[in-house]
Amino acid sequence: MRDVQERIERHIDTLSKFTSTPGRGTTRFTYSKEDLQARDYIKEKMKEYGLQVREDGIGNIFGKLEGTLKDAPSVLIGSHFDSVPNGGNYDGPAGVVAGLEVAALFSKNHIKPKYPLEVIAMVEEEGGRFGAGLMGSRGIVGLLSEDEFKQIKDKDGISTEEAMASIGLDSTLPKKRDPETIKAFLELHIEQGPILEDKNIPLGVVESIVGLTQLEVTVTGQAGHAGTTPMDRRHDALVTTAKIIAQLPELAIGEGTVITTGRLHVFPNGANVIPEKTEFSIDIRSSKEEDVLNVIQKVEELIESYNGHGLQTAVEQSLYVPPKAMNQEIMSLMKEKCDELKIEYSPIHSGAGHDAMVFADFTDVAMLFVPSKSGLSHCPEEWSDSSDIANAVSVLYEVVKRLTEVE
Amino acid sequence: MRDVQERIERHIDTLSKFTSTPGRGTTRFTYSKEDLQARDYIKEKMKEYGLQVREDGIGNIFGKLEGTLKDAPSVLIGSHFDSVPNGGNYDGPAGVVAGLEVAALFSKNHIKPKYPLEVIAMVEEEGGRFGAGLMGSRGIVGLLSEDEFKQIKDKDGISTEEAMASIGLDSTLPKKRDPETIKAFLELHIEQGPILEDKNIPLGVVESIVGLTQLEVTVTGQAGHAGTTPMDRRHDALVTTAKIIAQLPELAIGEGTVITTGRLHVFPNGANVIPEKTEFSIDIRSSKEEDVLNVIQKVEELIESYNGHGLQTAVEQSLYVPPKAMNQEIMSLMKEKCDELKIEYSPIHSGAGHDAMVFADFTDVAMLFVPSKSGLSHCPEEWSDSSDIANAVSVLYEVVKRLTEVE
Repeated sequence: MRDVQERIERHIDTLSKFTSTPGRGTTRFTYSKEDLQARDYIKEKMKEYGLQVREDGIGNIFGKLEGTLKDAPSVLIGSHFDSVPNGGNYDGPAGVVAGLEVAALFSKNHIKPKYPLEVIAMVEEEGGRFGAGLMGSRGIVGLLSEDEFKQIKDKDGISTEEAMASIGLDSTLPKKRDPETIKAFLELHIEQGPILEDKNIPLGVVESIVGLTQLEVTVTGQAGHAGTTPMDRRHDALVTTAKIIAQLPELAIGEGTVITTGRLHVFPNGANVIPEKTEFSIDIRSSKEEDVLNVIQKVEELIESYNGHGLQTAVEQSLYVPPKAMNQEIMSLMKEKCDELKIEYSPIHSGAGHDAMVFADFTDVAMLFVPSKSGLSHCPEEWSDSSDIANAVSVLYEVVKRLTEVE
Repeated sequence: MRDVQERIERHIDTLSKFTSTPGRGTTRFTYSKEDLQARDYIKEKMKEYGLQVREDGIGNIFGKLEGTLKDAPSVLIGSHFDSVPNGGNYDGPAGVVAGLEVAALFSKNHIKPKYPLEVIAMVEEEGGRFGAGLMGSRGIVGLLSEDEFKQIKDKDGISTEEAMASIGLDSTLPKKRDPETIKAFLELHIEQGPILEDKNIPLGVVESIVGLTQLEVTVTGQAGHAGTTPMDRRHDALVTTAKIIAQLPELAIGEGTVITTGRLHVFPNGANVIPEKTEFSIDIRSSKEEDVLNVIQKVEELIESYNGHGLQTAVEQSLYVPPKAMNQEIMSLMKEKCDELKIEYSPIHSGAGHDAMVFADFTDVAMLFVPSKSGLSHCPEEWSDSSDIANAVSVLYEVVKRLTEVE
């Protein structure tokens, strides 16, 4: 596997050069010059590894190794190759590279599967340019209509179609793909958290992707002069908000449940004015839907308890994605192959959303995680060990051989 | 006093028309077209009431009634005539109008004082245009040097000198005034709080102006992915900040002490990112310096208690103005005149800063407050009763007569 690891390093190194913020991490927005550079590299490697390359009407790249069965569904393996602003070199590309290297092993070993293998490299998973996360995968499964796609614009007002044309992509090509053409979807991703590193285990077999809820909360009180309004006459929206946020961590009930307020705006936000209003987000994630629902209820009760006496609270649920279980059989197969290859693994829940979660309602899905150094992600310091990725490739190679029914 | 009250209403009505945001409150920035309109009206009324008008090198207006003593110091009475953006019609103008009406009574009653009376209308108390609060009064007492004044620019980069020239004011005129030329400074102002209205008392005799402290606090934790970072691995700057802000009201120790966090910024402020850093203001006010110092210490201890375990806190004191006591003799005189005129009054502390506080280190200072409807100020709804202002004028007239030693 030494040569696999070296190629992985070369791929990651090369792709990381396609950034609009050199020296300050990877910034590779969908349909940008850097997208085109990475795209050309991925397509070149696909061809080198014996795959037939095509792009769809959203710019997702597919590299196909035909199977011996006529019109049989494909085993898809891959991830996305866009990035957040000033992100790292692994979130996305690690999974694309793993797919390429599985194909490279098929090619090197002259393996002819019954079912086709397709390496897939998707766009706009992060929503970094168009604010439309998971855009590539949602397009493939048909959750994003042609009309919706056309209406998406970046912050400069450039439409998806215009942006695609600017790097020579054809948005009139088909986007949605018949689920019948997909046998399974496999994705390797970096963990983006500290669990595997803490346990010193090189591989995580993902059991589920968390359910994700986002609440938008508004607390409205009354503005007033910071000097002339006695404490007992105040309806301070920020003090109430602070009481709520301070109590949220206690409501993270259930194994692995997390609650985060990442965004908070204060109005009017002047040092000498009692805050009249706040708006803030509450992000709730858990791997069990019953936990998600229980926590949402408890959070809403907490917020409601501050309603009245000159303060109004309002909660709006802006996002609800239930937890997605990974396919039991493929998970078992992954674990079996880990044992055979003597690669230690840990079952793990994904706290982040992934393209795999979009595919989960349409086909059998499984994911592997490799450790993230210090648990860091979405920053230039993001790092995963190429030997861990190479181990994952060994496992995925065996799993894909089984799923494509190599004889 | 019926005619006084009617004139007060007419003055306030007229001045309130000089706003750049008609229909949305008074916005009268220093050296603006609206400043010039108000200025012309005030100067015209000063002349009508027999005062000699001059402007200084900052644009403050003085209307002087000479006394019989040669080169004697003046009793100043007035306030400011600028406003906050979208403010009310009374904050500032009420005090200018009261000064004008005291002069009107001197004129009507043909009173000749020993010491001169000067009605004063000051600029830029609010800092609405130049961010430089109390600019007019600081210039008069010499707390603002010529150089400092010249360097002040508005948010469009227009300097004070350029702005003055644009409405025909001469910035080369003297600014600082010898304290020896001032015998006392009297200011009527709206309360901007609910206390007098709550007590149903028409007049407040101000005993002190609060000490004002502003702290700038920074809490630094560690950013992380909202989904992949377990709760027990977090160093969430916002949760810590929330705990601090939620406890601040309990630290408002001492009579009339108030604590406010009006401004809070969260970084990076994304819904799915654990906050890495917060920056927020803490405004502390109290009428006794020992209370101010005690509360500052307790607040700093609270913040310091969250230092460590992956979180750093830092506190910087950006402003410290000690409480200013009003002059005991003038206060007694005011109360004596209230009793004679059968006007009910209450001693009160000023929770807001005023031009009077700037004069307090240089001359004898006293203030009267009239009730603010619903305690509101710095908003279009700001309102005070003209009969309350007229009552205050009656008291001020008697007090000024005594201070100017009318025979």
